[in-house]
Amino acid sequence: MSSIPQWVKELKPSSPQGSELLQAERQKSNISIESLSKFLFTSEVLNRRQEILKILQAEKVFDKSQNYFDGRIDRFKTALSRAKMLRNLEIKHKWTSDQLLDASDFVSEAGPYGLHASMFLATLRDQGTEEQHKLFLQPAQNYKYIGCYAQTELGHGSNVRGLETTATWNPEDKTFTLHSPSLTSSKWWIGSLGRTANYAVVMAQLVIAGKKYGPHPFVCQVRDLNTHQPLEGIYVGDIGPKFGYNTMDNGFLLFNKVKIPHINLLAKFSGVDPNTNKYIRPSSASLVYGTLTWVRSTIVLQSGSVLARGVTIAIRYTAVRCQFQDLETSATSKGENQVLNYTMVQYRLLPLLAATFALHFTGKAMMNLYKKNQMKMKQVPEKAADKKRNADPEETHSSSEMLADIHATSCGLKALASSTAAEGLEVTRRACGGHGYSSFAGIGSWYADYLPTTTWEGDNYMLTQQVARYLLKSARAVINGHAPNNETSKILRWFLEKQDTGAAHDILISDSDVVAAFAWRTAYLTFEALRHRDVEKKTWNSLLVDFWRLSTAHSQYLVVKNFYEVLQSESTRNELDPNTIVVLHKLFRLHALSTLEKEASEFFSSGAITIRQIQLTRNKAVMQLLEDIRPHSLKLVDAWQFPDWQLDSSLGRYDGKVYEDMFRRASELNPLNCLTIDPYPDSTVIVKKDETAFLKGKL
Amino acid sequence: MSSIPQWVKELKPSSPQGSELLQAERQKSNISIESLSKFLFTSEVLNRRQEILKILQAEKVFDKSQNYFDGRIDRFKTALSRAKMLRNLEIKHKWTSDQLLDASDFVSEAGPYGLHASMFLATLRDQGTEEQHKLFLQPAQNYKYIGCYAQTELGHGSNVRGLETTATWNPEDKTFTLHSPSLTSSKWWIGSLGRTANYAVVMAQLVIAGKKYGPHPFVCQVRDLNTHQPLEGIYVGDIGPKFGYNTMDNGFLLFNKVKIPHINLLAKFSGVDPNTNKYIRPSSASLVYGTLTWVRSTIVLQSGSVLARGVTIAIRYTAVRCQFQDLETSATSKGENQVLNYTMVQYRLLPLLAATFALHFTGKAMMNLYKKNQMKMKQVPEKAADKKRNADPEETHSSSEMLADIHATSCGLKALASSTAAEGLEVTRRACGGHGYSSFAGIGSWYADYLPTTTWEGDNYMLTQQVARYLLKSARAVINGHAPNNETSKILRWFLEKQDTGAAHDILISDSDVVAAFAWRTAYLTFEALRHRDVEKKTWNSLLVDFWRLSTAHSQYLVVKNFYEVLQSESTRNELDPNTIVVLHKLFRLHALSTLEKEASEFFSSGAITIRQIQLTRNKAVMQLLEDIRPHSLKLVDAWQFPDWQLDSSLGRYDGKVYEDMFRRASELNPLNCLTIDPYPDSTVIVKKDETAFLKGKL
Repeated sequence: MSSIPQWVKELKPSSPQGSELLQAERQKSNISIESLSKFLFTSEVLNRRQEILKILQAEKVFDKSQNYFDGRIDRFKTALSRAKMLRNLEIKHKWTSDQLLDASDFVSEAGPYGLHASMFLATLRDQGTEEQHKLFLQPAQNYKYIGCYAQTELGHGSNVRGLETTATWNPEDKTFTLHSPSLTSSKWWIGSLGRTANYAVVMAQLVIAGKKYGPHPFVCQVRDLNTHQPLEGIYVGDIGPKFGYNTMDNGFLLFNKVKIPHINLLAKFSGVDPNTNKYIRPSSASLVYGTLTWVRSTIVLQSGSVLARGVTIAIRYTAVRCQFQDLETSATSKGENQVLNYTMVQYRLLPLLAATFALHFTGKAMMNLYKKNQMKMKQVPEKAADKKRNADPEETHSSSEMLADIHATSCGLKALASSTAAEGLEVTRRACGGHGYSSFAGIGSWYADYLPTTTWEGDNYMLTQQVARYLLKSARAVINGHAPNNETSKILRWFLEKQDTGAAHDILISDSDVVAAFAWRTAYLTFEALRHRDVEKKTWNSLLVDFWRLSTAHSQYLVVKNFYEVLQSESTRNELDPNTIVVLHKLFRLHALSTLEKEASEFFSSGAITIRQIQLTRNKAVMQLLEDIRPHSLKLVDAWQFPDWQLDSSLGRYDGKVYEDMFRRASELNPLNCLTIDPYPDSTVIVKKDETAFLKGKL
Repeated sequence: MSSIPQWVKELKPSSPQGSELLQAERQKSNISIESLSKFLFTSEVLNRRQEILKILQAEKVFDKSQNYFDGRIDRFKTALSRAKMLRNLEIKHKWTSDQLLDASDFVSEAGPYGLHASMFLATLRDQGTEEQHKLFLQPAQNYKYIGCYAQTELGHGSNVRGLETTATWNPEDKTFTLHSPSLTSSKWWIGSLGRTANYAVVMAQLVIAGKKYGPHPFVCQVRDLNTHQPLEGIYVGDIGPKFGYNTMDNGFLLFNKVKIPHINLLAKFSGVDPNTNKYIRPSSASLVYGTLTWVRSTIVLQSGSVLARGVTIAIRYTAVRCQFQDLETSATSKGENQVLNYTMVQYRLLPLLAATFALHFTGKAMMNLYKKNQMKMKQVPEKAADKKRNADPEETHSSSEMLADIHATSCGLKALASSTAAEGLEVTRRACGGHGYSSFAGIGSWYADYLPTTTWEGDNYMLTQQVARYLLKSARAVINGHAPNNETSKILRWFLEKQDTGAAHDILISDSDVVAAFAWRTAYLTFEALRHRDVEKKTWNSLLVDFWRLSTAHSQYLVVKNFYEVLQSESTRNELDPNTIVVLHKLFRLHALSTLEKEASEFFSSGAITIRQIQLTRNKAVMQLLEDIRPHSLKLVDAWQFPDWQLDSSLGRYDGKVYEDMFRRASELNPLNCLTIDPYPDSTVIVKKDETAFLKGKL
């Protein structure tokens, strides 16, 4: 493309300038970004991130300018270069795993080492014996082996027990034969496997003497360590392009009777005795349970900041973008109105802004609960050893009860949080109007990359069954008087006591009554589902929709309650200034009341609130909160502290230079503009001149 | 990538085979696909489409096998080749515009001639004089000029009156000067402009003697007809990649004082008198009004089939995909359960299946209304001439009233229909589970390409203000007794009569009562909004959320009413067999009741129905309808008659060979698999061997 003419270079956006508008926004609010950021992340973490950001920005390979233009093959190659560099920086700077996560967060793309560094290493570590650690984990930690975690198959995802790949024990030579009996047994969606990995942990049905013992983890080399070509009997490759996540090489894998030694079955919990040829049963499944809970808790914790990226971009852009004059309130404003001033835009964006905080606090609470539980579990075996003959049934009971509670909580919150974040991101994209559709908005690709989170680690709809199962069990225990003394039992018991006198939740005045209204709805739906199941004897399948509603209701209650508890806590009052607390309180009310309004019919029909209350919530309370929060919205997103480099968004720039950046990217970075075409249908020539190849070399 | 080993070629999916499952599904239902298809489209259209499909499939350029793999530049080049071919086929086969649309529909991608063939030609035709037709339209029709429609600017979308580009009249040499005074005045998002067009219709502020007369359409050459290089004073290019629609070269355009002759202002309705230098005012804006209404009606009509593509893919795939055993109902089924049997999946997909029909019928009704109105408008001028001195105020009144009604209807329905289709497509994608995320699912790219429809031709949120404005005006007229005798006034009047005695809509038994409940809610919300506006004197901005709710309610009422009327009509009973009518009736009830359930709180609080009714709807009626429709669902999507070639989906194949097709595309077509990489972080080599370039040449 010919160079930019001087007259174009001299053009500026028409007034008011985006930078002036954002400056004015920031002056409007009296909250302290600094103290709020510290409250969210701690200064230690904020400083740590600053350092990492500098290191990354200094490396040319992380230059993002062609990310939105490159096709899949180029994106993958670049992602591999970046993954290598991240690994080298990790060594050089002796990064902890948290620091490596920060770095990946800034780079913001799935890298080809992604599944090696997470699931492959974690499985070897958690499920391997000491001997196996030496044999597999050590070379893997040193990136001599690059691995992946091969569980899902072309025909089997959610139903892990239905996996078809077999690992048959051969007593004669003490080996296993890995085999793919059908096309649907092909491993599929396996991250890092498509082009990168030379090793895999393969989940396969263990078969001993013709009998199946369910899926077990086997270590299997898949590619030559020198030539990187697939080994004999193995057919492996990339599964092709996806809606997003295209920097990752998700792969497929088929085995044609591949023999692996006995030592390759990860044997910490179960295995095959090579002498007796008998199966060794696992003593407890709870640690595996723990890993899943940890992964889900992480998803909950991340969901707030995942959504906050979109909210940051949309709030900054709608504060810069002006459209139409508001004639009725034009006394103060000259020219066109900031789009963020329109109530329809506030109604879409500000509840999501509130949700980012609600999810963040919930994620933190979830993580604390997880850690608390892990500590307790670690104590149990020791105690169990002490008390071997004098076992305390109470202790074991409460520990397993806590495990069940935390498991259900993590399932329900994972589903709610990741759906809220994914769907919320799309709302923020559309709130940016036409420009939200441009890749330069920075929301579309982020959304597309995040979407699989609603499916992996338990499909969001499937997970709701776990929550319902737990709540039904709890309700039965409450009715039978055997319930443990936890939060869930408490609200169920409270509902049973109050149900005949009815509820009078003063949601428009009292915060604790708002929380109580959410608890009431959960309890009502629980006992309704219980009646369907236990009294009316309905089938499980016929109740799936009720279960999904119940799980959503329960998880929304937990999020509202967690936000409420943060506001009640003393540390909040110590760490935050009063102005910021006032706004945070309004965000709590907006989150709770706008959720309540969206789910109004369940609140009515459960008797948690009256129709008059919902009308007042809808027409007065929510609209008033939008107006109150509006002046603080820009600073509230600033508090999330996303550097421009991370957002990579024209619309979400901190300085408000939206239009300059859109134009720069289109005119200076866009390789399509190096193509001169022949436009006429009677000519078979498509490209007259192509400077793209030349440019590519230059970049 | 090395060739596929023999043992892989011999693998089959595990049983039951997809083809067997779909065959069994088709045998389960007694409805007639043939008669339903004819009823939806007519046999004439179905036959016409068959012929066109054959013509397209015979041309190599339309081969779709690399669509999901190609990067933006390759996709654009291919799209241009295809656009040229479509134009040549159009000439060769003397296609009508309907036939050309069918062909584009099958190709299913936005082509670089898209805006030339639609808005450029239409604007020249509708707004040009005879002289201008000769000068511009004729060469454009012959593709000597390739054009676009340059309205939107970097800083201005919805607010057309705020456009910054100026066209200043120069009395001295009888020319206009087109000029871009700022960066934000750059034309932006202009389809076909980025690389393809050499001409543009530019909407610019007409300025005569320092006075602005608002936006007017100017014809302007932008690129040289031989070299295809931009002309002097013009800076033009592609705006860069987008979330979808990347086969189209949306462009930007800046003018540095570019002079164009007087004849280049399209002057059918208004213009500048070159002798007096005075502005010539337009006599009527109604025809322009008409074009917008037509475009919106087209969007409504297409929305049903847009959504039906996703529904077709998801229903076929969930009928093939089996996961988990249903132990409670396993008496009849062996092995795993079809995913479509789970109520949670039915609850997500079948209401969307019902919506495809509801939207299709509504679109047809909307189109008929539009045509009726156009005929009426054409008659008016003639009559007006006859009655010049004896004007009939009733006649003009009813014609403009009809115009207002059809305008509001098209705005509201465009917003509802395109949002329903876009959001529904994403639901169908997720209902496909993990594989829905693969490009081979065929939903993601279709969804991404469709998304801008929610923004263009009036942003869906903005449009709801037009509907509310019309309903408020109608309500005032009804109260004042001046209302015309149309449907809208009728329901408002009926509500006023009944509001004190209350409603008793028997929605669980009577279809007409379901329609009445929707009408009641619309009327209730209208008068509530009117009270806020006229009595409480609330600002327009503070009511935008209410207006959005009102518009949605009204449009949902129209869709339900249209579906109901199709079922009542005699032609339906003549054209369809009774079995099919029974199922169509169930689809009507499912559409209406699931909509009612989702919006339950508005139905309660307006008093349209009782809480007990909504509980029965939720727990019984909807669930029963899902069960009733389930056995027919495959044949119902078959009736939409999408050929596999059009869907380009592994999951949505008519024959159910889902897994074979997924595997074939990943292993045989995926160019990433031609890349052998070096996986180690201590090596700077990324690619060891790249067969992609070789393959590219071969394809």
